[in-house]
Amino acid sequence: MKALDVVIMAAGKGTRMKSSMPKVLHRLAGKALVQHVIDTARTLKARHTIVITGHGADQVEPALLSANPNDKLQFARQMPQLGTGHAVQQTVPLLADDAVVVVLSGDVPLTQADTLQALIDLCDGKQLALLTIAFDDPTGYGRIVRSPSGQVHAIVEHKDANDEQRAINEVYSGIMAVPAKLLKPWLARLDNNNAQQEFYLTDVVKFAESDGVPVVAHKIKDVAQVAGVNSPTQLAELERTFQLRQAQAFMADGVRIIDPARFDVRGTLTCGQDVEIDVNCIFQGNVSLGHGVKIGANCVIANCVIEAGAVIHPFTHIDGEKLGVTVGEGALIGPFARLRPGAQLAAEVHIGNFVEVKNSTMAKGSKANHLAYLGDATVGERVNYGAGSITANYDGANKHRTVIEADVHVGSNCVLVAPVTIGAGGTVGGGSTITKSTEAGALSVARGKQVSIANYKRPEKKPKA
Amino acid sequence: MKALDVVIMAAGKGTRMKSSMPKVLHRLAGKALVQHVIDTARTLKARHTIVITGHGADQVEPALLSANPNDKLQFARQMPQLGTGHAVQQTVPLLADDAVVVVLSGDVPLTQADTLQALIDLCDGKQLALLTIAFDDPTGYGRIVRSPSGQVHAIVEHKDANDEQRAINEVYSGIMAVPAKLLKPWLARLDNNNAQQEFYLTDVVKFAESDGVPVVAHKIKDVAQVAGVNSPTQLAELERTFQLRQAQAFMADGVRIIDPARFDVRGTLTCGQDVEIDVNCIFQGNVSLGHGVKIGANCVIANCVIEAGAVIHPFTHIDGEKLGVTVGEGALIGPFARLRPGAQLAAEVHIGNFVEVKNSTMAKGSKANHLAYLGDATVGERVNYGAGSITANYDGANKHRTVIEADVHVGSNCVLVAPVTIGAGGTVGGGSTITKSTEAGALSVARGKQVSIANYKRPEKKPKA
Amino acid sequence: MKALDVVIMAAGKGTRMKSSMPKVLHRLAGKALVQHVIDTARTLKARHTIVITGHGADQVEPALLSANPNDKLQFARQMPQLGTGHAVQQTVPLLADDAVVVVLSGDVPLTQADTLQALIDLCDGKQLALLTIAFDDPTGYGRIVRSPSGQVHAIVEHKDANDEQRAINEVYSGIMAVPAKLLKPWLARLDNNNAQQEFYLTDVVKFAESDGVPVVAHKIKDVAQVAGVNSPTQLAELERTFQLRQAQAFMADGVRIIDPARFDVRGTLTCGQDVEIDVNCIFQGNVSLGHGVKIGANCVIANCVIEAGAVIHPFTHIDGEKLGVTVGEGALIGPFARLRPGAQLAAEVHIGNFVEVKNSTMAKGSKANHLAYLGDATVGERVNYGAGSITANYDGANKHRTVIEADVHVGSNCVLVAPVTIGAGGTVGGGSTITKSTEAGALSVARGKQVSIANYKRPEKKPKA
Repeated sequence: MKALDVVIMAAGKGTRMKSSMPKVLHRLAGKALVQHVIDTARTLKARHTIVITGHGADQVEPALLSANPNDKLQFARQMPQLGTGHAVQQTVPLLADDAVVVVLSGDVPLTQADTLQALIDLCDGKQLALLTIAFDDPTGYGRIVRSPSGQVHAIVEHKDANDEQRAINEVYSGIMAVPAKLLKPWLARLDNNNAQQEFYLTDVVKFAESDGVPVVAHKIKDVAQVAGVNSPTQLAELERTFQLRQAQAFMADGVRIIDPARFDVRGTLTCGQDVEIDVNCIFQGNVSLGHGVKIGANCVIANCVIEAGAVIHPFTHIDGEKLGVTVGEGALIGPFARLRPGAQLAAEVHIGNFVEVKNSTMAKGSKANHLAYLGDATVGERVNYGAGSITANYDGANKHRTVIEADVHVGSNCVLVAPVTIGAGGTVGGGSTITKSTEAGALSVARGKQVSIANYKRPEKKPKA
Repeated sequence: MKALDVVIMAAGKGTRMKSSMPKVLHRLAGKALVQHVIDTARTLKARHTIVITGHGADQVEPALLSANPNDKLQFARQMPQLGTGHAVQQTVPLLADDAVVVVLSGDVPLTQADTLQALIDLCDGKQLALLTIAFDDPTGYGRIVRSPSGQVHAIVEHKDANDEQRAINEVYSGIMAVPAKLLKPWLARLDNNNAQQEFYLTDVVKFAESDGVPVVAHKIKDVAQVAGVNSPTQLAELERTFQLRQAQAFMADGVRIIDPARFDVRGTLTCGQDVEIDVNCIFQGNVSLGHGVKIGANCVIANCVIEAGAVIHPFTHIDGEKLGVTVGEGALIGPFARLRPGAQLAAEVHIGNFVEVKNSTMAKGSKANHLAYLGDATVGERVNYGAGSITANYDGANKHRTVIEADVHVGSNCVLVAPVTIGAGGTVGGGSTITKSTEAGALSVARGKQVSIANYKRPEKKPKA
Repeated sequence: MKALDVVIMAAGKGTRMKSSMPKVLHRLAGKALVQHVIDTARTLKARHTIVITGHGADQVEPALLSANPNDKLQFARQMPQLGTGHAVQQTVPLLADDAVVVVLSGDVPLTQADTLQALIDLCDGKQLALLTIAFDDPTGYGRIVRSPSGQVHAIVEHKDANDEQRAINEVYSGIMAVPAKLLKPWLARLDNNNAQQEFYLTDVVKFAESDGVPVVAHKIKDVAQVAGVNSPTQLAELERTFQLRQAQAFMADGVRIIDPARFDVRGTLTCGQDVEIDVNCIFQGNVSLGHGVKIGANCVIANCVIEAGAVIHPFTHIDGEKLGVTVGEGALIGPFARLRPGAQLAAEVHIGNFVEVKNSTMAKGSKANHLAYLGDATVGERVNYGAGSITANYDGANKHRTVIEADVHVGSNCVLVAPVTIGAGGTVGGGSTITKSTEAGALSVARGKQVSIANYKRPEKKPKA
């Protein structure tokens, strides 16, 4: 089989996006439009992936290079933009004759790899293969004109089409597969003798015909695969299509999704058996849900591993970013909990309402159930961390670590001033500010003596001036 | 009128659910599919309700028995599963001759009682009555073949149907009403001489015809009433249908629902006049909303009574579980409030952001507006419970009660170590940890003396190693 | 051009709303139905806006007067309600002969000003101009009967229409423009000789014809513009239509809305370039979002200004009510943050989870990242306000101010008892309750000495009685 080189057109401005960001960097499901196309190219095991940049190239190129450094992307700059043919002309120095070239659009994010593979197979290393689609309303699109035998004869632009041609509803998608050895001389023959004074890539069809190269079409039905994004409205429509398809795929695998219309995955979600996801949840980055995990309504879950049987109650926000978050088996999290990077919770840990955990490990069975902060802490097994308690991990300059050994009971509204260790089995009295490490088994208290003033006269409400 | 015995087929595995849980236990609107059917049977005042179990019977039977112990369900086990006729054969020992038998499917949750009553009426204690429906696309379903006079003549399976029969769009729903006296001998005559080697219940139609028993059909239009659940996708579709219908019913009663597509009731919701429910709210268990109650966006409300004029702000989580929660007239709750089991809030109580109340009573006009925890507390009238204050109700082993009498003012970040009573009209100074009960009218303070170290030199940021 | 007087019919009861509130006060997108119509009249620069009230007039009139005192609304009471003609008769004393009168319905909220302007233009100061629409199913509506030349000849009520007339799908919308000089004598000629014994405004068509006044129609296609609200279901449908249109308009301006079906604006939202709004957000009152602002999922944002580059994380609740809220450039807010009236946050301020800010200014770069309350505080630049810290601004009778000068570091779980000032560069030790102002640069501590009791024996769990 011939090597595959993928060319992605990503030089356009996207005026209707009304954005300072180049169109192809706008995100669908959390990922740049053109990145979707690059990822598809990777799936096809493309030898070279060449991105044609132009508008905003200084933004586009570094963004793509940093996303997946292993992709070894190549860039061809198109300045100024003189049409689709002109765009592909810029890639000629990067194209080897032995390749099949697939031309894709950076603003058409949802073409599936198997569709493209079928197109490549149809090209067969020697034909010009066009991806086409039948539209209910083909107005504005280039029609696929076929000979009586069904062979593709021409692509006729809408404005150039006669009535009979306009009645054709099969249109060109903008995607083709073509041997480089054929493509390169055809690109050299393009001209801009047309109303727009642009070089059209579609003119290669007539060169193919004149050269006796068969032009073949792979016709699909799925509109989303060839849908381009030209406006925020189109982007939103495609986002919904994509999210609904993801939901359907998860449901086909047995995931219970309470409302597929309120389900968003922006990244990679993997689910074990019997996972349930309530309404209005968002998953971002890499998220793994073990068997039997239940995600309550209105959760935002990113970059974490949630192990079997854990229950995430509503209104929970988890984002592991680069450090990750782990929620152990059978853990109970939320509602109104926040797990931040480096929260590593073992089995049966309970994190309750208005509790924040950051860069801390909690061993099996530990609990922080109410209004608390655990940052830069190492918490042993079976610890009960009281309501309102705080690890004071930051002295205004540096972060320090708090160690709470197994079986410790920390009272309410305590402050543990790091660095500090609470010895195993110890107890910290409610309201204490602990600045020195404590012995195992000790009760440690740091609070004022309770005094009373009888018949205290409260302040009275002052009349407003 | 004849007695009614309901037979519910619930032995199937539900392979496409891809779940370790038997299909009929999957929940729609928070309730097992088969439980919807059982509840409908109860509405019909069925004398006996017989559930045919098979796959996962050891899970299904106890789950159903515990749900409504008064239902006096009977179970007939079908092992192995040899077809729908074989399933109903298992119930013969439980069927008395005086009954009309209605055969239902445990995975068809939304059949309405009035539809079944019409079917029973049509059966009239002496005919075989089939529930049928016209599908736009009947492919795969058993067609209802009628004689020229309109009398039902046969049910012909799709694969056995000729072209003329396939053009029929009236299909059998799987639901029938039939006198037990007729059904039982027919069941005895079933055979499995067919491609699937299964005993088909639908064969009773031909026995009826040969016995001269009229076969009649109650034909409905509402697809949802006969829709079965075979996959998570179908379950999600039916869930949305059900929720939307519930929303429409509430709106017809005058409830203002801002977005019917973002409204979920999983249980029983009762609403007074002029109730408003903002987007994306979920109601679970038994919830009662009084006149003029407003529920803000994104609330999860379960097992509670909210009295007239109360306002629940967005992001409020209420779940009374078994103990219940009461929110009094004109109370203001949230945003970001959490009311847990046993929270009993009187009129005009205010619970503000990041406040948790559990197993506590608060008398009229009391307030806990900011970042606080009230657990196992008895709070009098007009109490002001300060920001960040905590009842330390748990000593690591037992729970104790905190009593805060009327007109007490608790300062900020206090800890009230239970058991403790703050006497009426008393004041607790901010930052105090109160371990001993205080006198009425007293100011109680427990804090360290404020000292200052001038020109304090802060820690400096250490260079990273 | 003739002066424009707008007459709005708002006397109906709205029985199907099943509400104690008059129908026209029910809110669409947070605004009373009739207020939408009044606002449209204002856009048309109506000289007089006359609201015909009846049912609930004592509620309707003050509600409308207080909404926009500058509107100088006039009211005509219709008691009892004897039909649409009778309603408009009540306005005769308020109508000057020089006007063109536009008759609108208070329960038809979405008629657009340009549609009405076209109708007024068509009226041309001398004709009777009707707003009409073609319905797929015109059942129940008054048909527009035209002469062969296309001239409007009559409005025929559905029940009076013959088969040929019922086949007409152009219906009268209830909206007309007519010179007052013509309208007034026509109103005087109305009678109630019909089945309902009501005075129908539509009878003016026949008077126009008999008087030789041309009757003309402005026929539109957009159903939402003439849709009336008679039930909560219709209100919810129109709400969704309205919200979706708003979303589309914002997207056309370049705003990125992740799910247009989960986007609600109830008031006035203005957006700079490159604004992104995640799913399920609600905007209320007057909200301004600067360039590049990102709003996370599930936010409720009201009455505030959010400046360029600020990021609002999910689950953030902002409501400035009358005092307003400002979020400065590049600020980071949330998740789970609450900004209340008078929160004035400068550039690069960070407000984190479970933090509430009310009536406080925070200067550039200040941070309150965890479980904290800032009320009635003035915070300088670069302050770090510790986790769990509280400004005790309320002494049970009066509110006092806390001043935290620049570069202060407040530790965790502190209480700052107002009135109090923490001098610039000072440090407050964790767990301190500060009641006296502190010197600049000082370390201030107020806490008990830490003591330990070795081998502390914890309480043991009591057996249940």
